[in-house]
Amino acid sequence: MTAKTPPIRLAIHGGAGGIRRDKLTPEREQAFVQVLTQSLQTGYQVLVQGGTSTDAVAAAIVIMEDSPVFNAGKGAVFSHEGHNELDASIMDGASLNAGAVAAVTTIRNPILAAQAVMTNSPHVMLIGTGAEHFAAEQGLEIVEPSYFFVQHRWNQLQKAKENEQIALDHDLETESQTQAKTQNDEKHGTVGSVALDHYGNLAAGTSTGGLTNKRFGRIGDTPIIGAGTYADNRSVAISATGTGEMFIRTAAAYQTAIQVRLQNMPLAQAADDTLAEIAAIGGEGGLIVLNAKGDYALRFNTSGMFRGVIGNDGIVHIGIFPGNEIPAQSR
Amino acid sequence: MTAKTPPIRLAIHGGAGGIRRDKLTPEREQAFVQVLTQSLQTGYQVLVQGGTSTDAVAAAIVIMEDSPVFNAGKGAVFSHEGHNELDASIMDGASLNAGAVAAVTTIRNPILAAQAVMTNSPHVMLIGTGAEHFAAEQGLEIVEPSYFFVQHRWNQLQKAKENEQIALDHDLETESQTQAKTQNDEKHGTVGSVALDHYGNLAAGTSTGGLTNKRFGRIGDTPIIGAGTYADNRSVAISATGTGEMFIRTAAAYQTAIQVRLQNMPLAQAADDTLAEIAAIGGEGGLIVLNAKGDYALRFNTSGMFRGVIGNDGIVHIGIFPGNEIPAQSR
Repeated sequence: MTAKTPPIRLAIHGGAGGIRRDKLTPEREQAFVQVLTQSLQTGYQVLVQGGTSTDAVAAAIVIMEDSPVFNAGKGAVFSHEGHNELDASIMDGASLNAGAVAAVTTIRNPILAAQAVMTNSPHVMLIGTGAEHFAAEQGLEIVEPSYFFVQHRWNQLQKAKENEQIALDHDLETESQTQAKTQNDEKHGTVGSVALDHYGNLAAGTSTGGLTNKRFGRIGDTPIIGAGTYADNRSVAISATGTGEMFIRTAAAYQTAIQVRLQNMPLAQAADDTLAEIAAIGGEGGLIVLNAKGDYALRFNTSGMFRGVIGNDGIVHIGIFPGNEIPAQSR
Repeated sequence: MTAKTPPIRLAIHGGAGGIRRDKLTPEREQAFVQVLTQSLQTGYQVLVQGGTSTDAVAAAIVIMEDSPVFNAGKGAVFSHEGHNELDASIMDGASLNAGAVAAVTTIRNPILAAQAVMTNSPHVMLIGTGAEHFAAEQGLEIVEPSYFFVQHRWNQLQKAKENEQIALDHDLETESQTQAKTQNDEKHGTVGSVALDHYGNLAAGTSTGGLTNKRFGRIGDTPIIGAGTYADNRSVAISATGTGEMFIRTAAAYQTAIQVRLQNMPLAQAADDTLAEIAAIGGEGGLIVLNAKGDYALRFNTSGMFRGVIGNDGIVHIGIFPGNEIPAQSR
């Protein structure tokens, strides 16, 4: 890269969790890789054409929201009551502006609603029907809740409920083990993106359907600025995925950013430190981190994290299990 | 204090804002001081009797929620649609456990619901009717929305709406000035508490009715762990009040805590640094901060903040305008 070409970079994740190599069929892996590739290329096009990092982040996330393979937008998991309740947030590292929506059920692309809250309202966070009214006023696409229905997710809810029912007939230990297992199996799928644009500005965004069989009204870390998403040009842009409650309690995204800013910590170390703090209170997941020089770290303490990165050369790199991300063509 | 008497401490705030000496009648000042005193004494009794810091924080906040003079619980301001939408959060510095409720309309004491979420659910944040169902299951007192009605607050909403209406007939600058003024006048009144118990454990909690004339579904910093509330025995317990959006964007409570932990910064300096960052993006408000030695700082960058503190000696100290808090008896 010459001095005349400022660095651009976009990284994404499609959730971290107990992804097992032996359970991931080649067909299913290919489905994930295909959407990750399309997401990276879409965000990259925004950056190459001189678009902003927030627009690139939103564009990359829209692709994953529109795909049924991730737990965001179409393909979101079902709450206990059988609804799809969606959360998303976005942050602009140049201005520290931010927007978020939570518990929305009719907005096709929650990340675009979060962006509209950031850009066109004095507020940071709108929830429920209030957020839906705002999105409609903003001209965003409103859909029937049935748009989000995916048979596979519905089956997961029924299975989760059955397990809970069986467990309730047994002792408490079995119950909590079953619940833990159900939650663990289903928590990968939150999506997120971080980007650096030609102007040297960072942005981050995250979108999710939450937990299968979650209690009505539960909000995880995804729409919480400082927990699931943070961006500050002085440090890094971050998107998180994992056991949301522990990411809130440790202010995971902000903690990672401030350690880089105050202690000049390498990105991977800052992310690993945060994940260690999360592990210490029983949580797990992943963080994608990017600074204004284009350096990045995609870290997780689960068996895998769907992830990818693209830079000035336009070559898509994808990773699922530990190890460096590799060019998508050579998979 | 001898080595045999571990320090206990409780501090509270009743909101920061454009409090004007010439507008604060002696009667109204007395009403504030009376509730602050009762709140401090109630929390102190919990601590003296060997209760936990989280119970002390909750008890102190319940007094302020039950009083119509503060913008929390009874006396909450009205949203644009004429509802009282309440938010609260609480955090235990020993375990980093936390709980929050947002946009609830029928829970008499939102802080107790936040505490129940922390203690009796696997989640951190529940919103809306989901949170209300949970609170009812937990045996908390559910009230008619009319319980929260206070004539004075209703008049404030009508005035805010009138101003907006007039402003809409004029140019945009006038409109935003009027809105800014309305929000500024009404934002003081959020309540919060931090406590240190006999066991050396810190806790923090915050409760609010949000902004007069706020958009339906708007969530401020109060129920956001890391923004309005944070507690960590390794650093400090914090409760915030002010222009919520800017406190979210700067992760105000967490930022203050981590600066104390990583940089060993004096409490007042850490709070002032955070308030300076908030001012830099156009915000204002206050922070109350307490560490596990019993040191505290009650800081604000507005003209005043209703606040008070009590320690082992049981003497209530109260402050409204800049300067040290003074014994309530000598006011």
